[in-house]
Amino acid sequence: MTYCVAITVDKGLVFASDSRTNAGVDHLSTYTKMFTFGKEGERALVVLTAGNLATTQSVIAQLHRDIKQGSQPNFDSVQDMTEAAEYLGQISSAQQQKHVQTSAGATFDPSASFLFGGQIAGGEHRVFMVYPEGNFIMATPENPYQQTGEIKYGKPILDRIITRKTSLEQAALCALVSMDSTMRSNATVGPPLDVLIYEKDSLSVRRHFLFQADDPYLLELKNAWDQKIREAFSGLHSFNLEEPERLVANTE
Amino acid sequence: MTYCVAITVDKGLVFASDSRTNAGVDHLSTYTKMFTFGKEGERALVVLTAGNLATTQSVIAQLHRDIKQGSQPNFDSVQDMTEAAEYLGQISSAQQQKHVQTSAGATFDPSASFLFGGQIAGGEHRVFMVYPEGNFIMATPENPYQQTGEIKYGKPILDRIITRKTSLEQAALCALVSMDSTMRSNATVGPPLDVLIYEKDSLSVRRHFLFQADDPYLLELKNAWDQKIREAFSGLHSFNLEEPERLVANTE
Repeated sequence: MTYCVAITVDKGLVFASDSRTNAGVDHLSTYTKMFTFGKEGERALVVLTAGNLATTQSVIAQLHRDIKQGSQPNFDSVQDMTEAAEYLGQISSAQQQKHVQTSAGATFDPSASFLFGGQIAGGEHRVFMVYPEGNFIMATPENPYQQTGEIKYGKPILDRIITRKTSLEQAALCALVSMDSTMRSNATVGPPLDVLIYEKDSLSVRRHFLFQADDPYLLELKNAWDQKIREAFSGLHSFNLEEPERLVANTE
Repeated sequence: MTYCVAITVDKGLVFASDSRTNAGVDHLSTYTKMFTFGKEGERALVVLTAGNLATTQSVIAQLHRDIKQGSQPNFDSVQDMTEAAEYLGQISSAQQQKHVQTSAGATFDPSASFLFGGQIAGGEHRVFMVYPEGNFIMATPENPYQQTGEIKYGKPILDRIITRKTSLEQAALCALVSMDSTMRSNATVGPPLDVLIYEKDSLSVRRHFLFQADDPYLLELKNAWDQKIREAFSGLHSFNLEEPERLVANTE
């Protein structure tokens, strides 16, 4: 499985992805799911992948091939982020279609989805969710983040913390905490973790960080969060067990 | 959808369930999912239901009918908790089978699952998960809780807090916090909430509480937890963005 999250705040964008893939429990592997494109100072594009690994790899390969061969459109030629998302959706559908027809079994599922974001000079910074069918939605002020994969474990903390006013540092921290909750409760999501912090108008994907499983900061964060959650929990008050108004009468 | 959790600790058992049901977003209703059986001082049995509402209602009705008619086995006659879980599984399979055969469409799904627990005099207090097929597993010291329905949002807090040594009050509080995280992130889980606290060897289901949506304690808990999570988060340290060893080299 996979967990990816992309956050858009006023100051920029944050992307985070795990790197565990599995085709059955015997087939655990590590593949990065974060890919960057663009030209420093002109455009910065980030793609996070989820779903069938053969599909996502062929999509990434095609994106690079289109740039190299100058096929139109490509990530170096698209004029704005919406055009870029549409192009990514088309490439994804086309790659999936290639293998659907040759499939022997009904259980074969080549589908893939993508979190996609960045900025092209002259436009706004944006985050999109590109669905397996190639259509897409955009993160908005009311919905400042998008997730794919094992999204539920790490959603409550995002819902509590992230707004458009959240700083980039806090958004990146929240993405790591969200990732930590997911990894703790689900064995199919795991390190290394990719984190990319995109500062609005920087038009650069240079702040791309990789955290290994034994990264001292990651271990410290994991322990600190665990400790703080326990402290927070221990500060809550139990309800009064003796208050009669909540008691349900025995129906027998 | 549904969220139910049953926790087993050394001192006893805690059960919690929401009461929202939906068949499509137009068809939201409120039905309790917690049902108690037994005889004070002799046996205390609790059933939490998830899945097809017609199935779960007919299962509960059959459980009552079997007691009334003295059919063997029934919840008043079973000798131990494992026998009780097996009987519940059989009733559930039988009710599902009745409607599978008359189904017109392939999308009809009569399946239901149950969290089941309690204690019968002379035996231990136990919690079981009864699957749609009627088979079941038991909560163990390594796995002190079972969940059904929308389980993922509320799992991280259970994983952090619950052990066999947790007190009944703390386990009940943790169940409410787990429920709160789920309700916050998923609209298909909602109040009123049933909570039942079973003290080991009490052989009584009297501590069954119902929290309405506007229950002052529930609102206070929701706000207090939100506040404490924010405080906990604000006490975490961001990673050093300038440390070069984590930077991923741009591959272009």
